[in-house]
Amino acid sequence: MKIIRSEAIAFLKEHDNYLILSHQYPDGDTLGSAFALCRLLRRLGKKANVECNDPIPPRFSYLHADLPKQSFEPECVTAVDVADTKLLGSRLNKLYGDKIQLCIDHHGSNLEYAEKLLLDANAGAVGEMIFEIYRDIGVPLDKPAAEALYTAIATDTGCFKYSNTTPKTLRISAELMELGVNVEGINRLMFDLNSKARLALQVMILDSLRYDLNGRCASIFITKEMLERTGATDDEIEGFSSLPRTIEGVDCGITFRESDDGFKISVRTTSALNACEICRSLGGGGHPAAAGCRADSPLEAAYQQVIAAVKKFL
Amino acid sequence: MKIIRSEAIAFLKEHDNYLILSHQYPDGDTLGSAFALCRLLRRLGKKANVECNDPIPPRFSYLHADLPKQSFEPECVTAVDVADTKLLGSRLNKLYGDKIQLCIDHHGSNLEYAEKLLLDANAGAVGEMIFEIYRDIGVPLDKPAAEALYTAIATDTGCFKYSNTTPKTLRISAELMELGVNVEGINRLMFDLNSKARLALQVMILDSLRYDLNGRCASIFITKEMLERTGATDDEIEGFSSLPRTIEGVDCGITFRESDDGFKISVRTTSALNACEICRSLGGGGHPAAAGCRADSPLEAAYQQVIAAVKKFL
Repeated sequence: MKIIRSEAIAFLKEHDNYLILSHQYPDGDTLGSAFALCRLLRRLGKKANVECNDPIPPRFSYLHADLPKQSFEPECVTAVDVADTKLLGSRLNKLYGDKIQLCIDHHGSNLEYAEKLLLDANAGAVGEMIFEIYRDIGVPLDKPAAEALYTAIATDTGCFKYSNTTPKTLRISAELMELGVNVEGINRLMFDLNSKARLALQVMILDSLRYDLNGRCASIFITKEMLERTGATDDEIEGFSSLPRTIEGVDCGITFRESDDGFKISVRTTSALNACEICRSLGGGGHPAAAGCRADSPLEAAYQQVIAAVKKFL
Repeated sequence: MKIIRSEAIAFLKEHDNYLILSHQYPDGDTLGSAFALCRLLRRLGKKANVECNDPIPPRFSYLHADLPKQSFEPECVTAVDVADTKLLGSRLNKLYGDKIQLCIDHHGSNLEYAEKLLLDANAGAVGEMIFEIYRDIGVPLDKPAAEALYTAIATDTGCFKYSNTTPKTLRISAELMELGVNVEGINRLMFDLNSKARLALQVMILDSLRYDLNGRCASIFITKEMLERTGATDDEIEGFSSLPRTIEGVDCGITFRESDDGFKISVRTTSALNACEICRSLGGGGHPAAAGCRADSPLEAAYQQVIAAVKKFL
């Protein structure tokens, strides 16, 4: 059932012992929003923990270094930035997938799996929604919560570069800056930090570029072999999926990333194409300009299948 | 003589027949600010033209496509985003270098060459200063002027990623967005457009990386031969100079770009180092985090000289 912000706030005030779930392969928005919500609940005198199916990458450690796990029996399971219970990851999905009482999300494609869903598809990041919850609940943001929300908003909007950035996004971020957020440090950590392994991977990725559909579609490939040869970690792959769409004349940029059970496919489009529709036709979902799906077929078959799907929408 | 905004406004209202000068190798701030100022003056019923020593790169054509040159005898020469008359370029410097009546700038290193200088070293871009002039003068921004100012602000702050971004930068940009600025289109044009030639150049640049001073200094090299081999144009080199500083552990990123008369050297630093001080010691100048200088010695000599200068400040 969809609810409005005041109902979500009433719900948050009423209950206790919160387990806050982020999505698998966690990013800045799901983690920043989850930890900011966790801090809010603790400041309201409640118990709250954040859980993620995957280990939290070290570069996000400042979000939770001062937040030791509390011990309690979870009573109220909340999902943040999770459009589909499948995205919780298999372990957390099995444990909690059918027990989510509250979901706070900004994906138009949200499957409405939660008892209560607070959805704002116009929010550039869930971080904006948590900012508004702090404001309406009347708890002043402290610096760690402001840094978590800045992280959430900046990462999901490509540091205000993507088309999901709105005037509200910028105004909220201005307020967060005024709370003393270490913007320079966070931006460097999130957007500007290249390891030598990542640079080596970048050269290989650039070499893997393939063009289709008269140059309107460009694909890159990140294989397990490339990761082994460069020593790049999962977290060091972040950001490459926006590369192919940046090429002149390209309306659809695709990234094929090899995983243990096939390929994770990420699709980025200009406004000429809807990435979410393309990925839905392949069993995935997401936003109009950035969406994803999976394939368990071998690379060449998966590649041909995705290109055929793009062709239908071009 | 330094003046305040109300004095600059009085000056702009008093005179007519404005020649507005941008700096050589023009970027989004000098051009966006110059054309926004030109539009303001024309809306005040005055004559105004923008002039630049170099041709304006095609990707900036939307800034002036609807602004045909007016014919008049220049009476009032104004420089925008020009810290030093040398930066006007030799032709314009010879013609107007000693005749600048008004300079509007945000470089702390401005040499105060103009009769009247409006300086705001805290502004992320001169575009913010022109926005405030529109506001105080009471001329509502139209869409082309708003797009020029958004271009100025977004390009000079790395789309709000660099440390010169302030809460004011974000709030002004929120207002500009609300005026209907085509943010998605401009961001793609300014930040996200890679030609195939540019990608080929990127691979060569990554291959040219050299580390010094225990990995705290990283340098890249863009030679004329690389440009010839890839077919990349001057304008396609934009943005690479921020690359070396993004490498983990690097506090000083240096770009050596070969020109007809030596090398243009660009220095980017983290807050651990002052780029402007380094470049001043080499005869250049700029901002604390991004500065530049020139060298007319052969590459290896220029390189050793710059590394020695960095070492002094590290």
